Amino acid sequence: MTSISINSFEEIIIPASAHPLVAHATGSSRLVRTLLGERVEKTPVWFMRQAGRSLPEYRALRSQGSMLDACLTPELASEITLQPVRRHGVDAAIFFSDIIVPLAILGIEVEIAAGRGPVFARPLSTAADIARAVEIDPALVRERGEAIARAVELTTDMLAEESESRGEPLPLIGFAGAPFTLAAYLVEGGPSKDHLAARRLIHEDPAAWNALTEWLARVTGEFLALQVASGASAAQLFDSWAGGLPPEDYRAAALPASAASLDAVRALPVPEGAGIDHIPLVHFGVGTGEILRDMASIGIDALGVDYRVPLDEAARRVGSHLTLQGNLDPALLFAPAGVRDAAIERILEAGRSARAHVFNLGHGVPMQADPDAISSVVRTVHGWRSA
Amino acid sequence: MTSISINSFEEIIIPASAHPLVAHATGSSRLVRTLLGERVEKTPVWFMRQAGRSLPEYRALRSQGSMLDACLTPELASEITLQPVRRHGVDAAIFFSDIIVPLAILGIEVEIAAGRGPVFARPLSTAADIARAVEIDPALVRERGEAIARAVELTTDMLAEESESRGEPLPLIGFAGAPFTLAAYLVEGGPSKDHLAARRLIHEDPAAWNALTEWLARVTGEFLALQVASGASAAQLFDSWAGGLPPEDYRAAALPASAASLDAVRALPVPEGAGIDHIPLVHFGVGTGEILRDMASIGIDALGVDYRVPLDEAARRVGSHLTLQGNLDPALLFAPAGVRDAAIERILEAGRSARAHVFNLGHGVPMQADPDAISSVVRTVHGWRSA
Repeated sequence: MTSISINSFEEIIIPASAHPLVAHATGSSRLVRTLLGERVEKTPVWFMRQAGRSLPEYRALRSQGSMLDACLTPELASEITLQPVRRHGVDAAIFFSDIIVPLAILGIEVEIAAGRGPVFARPLSTAADIARAVEIDPALVRERGEAIARAVELTTDMLAEESESRGEPLPLIGFAGAPFTLAAYLVEGGPSKDHLAARRLIHEDPAAWNALTEWLARVTGEFLALQVASGASAAQLFDSWAGGLPPEDYRAAALPASAASLDAVRALPVPEGAGIDHIPLVHFGVGTGEILRDMASIGIDALGVDYRVPLDEAARRVGSHLTLQGNLDPALLFAPAGVRDAAIERILEAGRSARAHVFNLGHGVPMQADPDAISSVVRTVHGWRSA
Repeated sequence: MTSISINSFEEIIIPASAHPLVAHATGSSRLVRTLLGERVEKTPVWFMRQAGRSLPEYRALRSQGSMLDACLTPELASEITLQPVRRHGVDAAIFFSDIIVPLAILGIEVEIAAGRGPVFARPLSTAADIARAVEIDPALVRERGEAIARAVELTTDMLAEESESRGEPLPLIGFAGAPFTLAAYLVEGGPSKDHLAARRLIHEDPAAWNALTEWLARVTGEFLALQVASGASAAQLFDSWAGGLPPEDYRAAALPASAASLDAVRALPVPEGAGIDHIPLVHFGVGTGEILRDMASIGIDALGVDYRVPLDEAARRVGSHLTLQGNLDPALLFAPAGVRDAAIERILEAGRSARAHVFNLGHGVPMQADPDAISSVVRTVHGWRSA
């Protein structure tokens, strides 16, 4: 797999001194320190899909226009990204975007159907479809990605303001979908219960599969690097469907492309004065109990664990040299406060087995969740002391 | 949980001497012996969803009428059940039905939408909905289940004929959906990616949840017992969605009802002269790596393992006192024959770690599968010798 040249980022990346890692000291934020292995007094907490449909202020902003339009409108994407930070008091923002955004930037026709997910106008059903798609230069993500770069810049400016009022730095987490999950959507044409079209292609036409995932590794790498170069202080790779693969297929047909995609972030220079030696990388998937060790093996700093594997068990499986992130069952947002708080405490206790722990849900925030329940999770986590 | 009275089965069960276990010696079949722990020369093989849309003869028979009608028309259900036995030479028939059939028999409005799954006209969205549903007497499954009893009888007659031409007994496996999976469908109103409505109810209203699953345990028990009393020689409990629960919720909110449902089969008298002391019970779910040991803990004979956990690893998790069933990835039905055969051999080798092994897929036969590939799996399995 060819490594990604970062030269042409120079045109769009912000000056090193303007990067939040330098300008706003986000390298010393609770989240970044914890991802890099430090135990801090208050366990940092953020939520996957914290920006989105659970918030009335989000629904008000998104009353018109498509999801994709919102992702590509910097003023809107940055405001949405900030909403949960202001409301819940979480320790980080996660960039409001979607895993298919880089594909849309490349001109692949896709829409995000409400309540369903991404739907592609032309699924990559054949080897010829794939051969045509991989002709598109992944570097176009960067060249045409001004809206993303601008949204990240606006977001980090707003986070800096919020940081001042809180009196502590607030980092932005960038993210991208992993090549396997993107491939599963592209080949299937949309969401699927079992991702059989993708799992079938792995065995039916391994060459086409490899071409697709190698290309997607570059696309994902470009999208992650664009966010980090524009101001994100950490990056998370979402491999939502990785748990649907048998472990040997995951290792052979999915993991190498995920590893390659992260190289794009590693290849970026860390801004001078950032106070950290590399950008922390988080790796997350759902139903990944059988492949946690594999997911942990690609030089990441933190592993996201879903709600099926207790964190102490996850630490046993992957070793204690990684930060773990997770893993409250989103269903517990609907439980009585006492039940939920007891579960949070169990997770915080289990998190002691890892070198450090970032609290999160074990999956995304459900749209039906009560925002007050989410805020109360933050209070409970911040009120807990490991001593 | 009240145990199920079997007295009123007397009206519909076939005489003991007519039960295939006695009349056709299915207790000495390769499948039943293996489920009960015996190592036989040829590993028995059958496939989940072997009867169905992958077969052209099925599509021809099902060109009109609904799926539910087919399940409730004895001549059709029995013919469909036999089709894969004749074509593939598998070692057992699995009754052609659907997990929602007992609910339909009880008068709950449901249809099976093509390509989607069961859709309920009135989801059990509130505690009041649940309270009304559980008023329905589960014994009506038996009283109104003549079509099922008749279909099982026709099927076992046809299997006896097929057995004669093959020169070996061929058993019928009965099956039912487990209470958790049925509850997930009922509460959600249809298929769902994450079963959040059910997982939410567990925490939001545990009393309503318990009432629902205790009732479903009796419904499932009635449906399983009806099939066994009418001529099935083994029974499998499908908990398709069990893997979506955190292990502690599975143990507290799903497993007890599954255990109770199997009691209905255990309470049936084994026909005199059957040559076995109990009806073998199989337990299966998808994505169950974290709960295999729990699933194995309810007095079953065999545990079905999906394609994510190798059988030797499954044997390590549950102990070697159970027969294991599985677990070829259905995606490998689309692989070149050499790749598929190598995977089959690996599974057969791994199956040595269990006390005995029934070969199967790790999930249902996909509708797009080539019937010839399925037949070739049977030949490869039957051609393998453990010595």
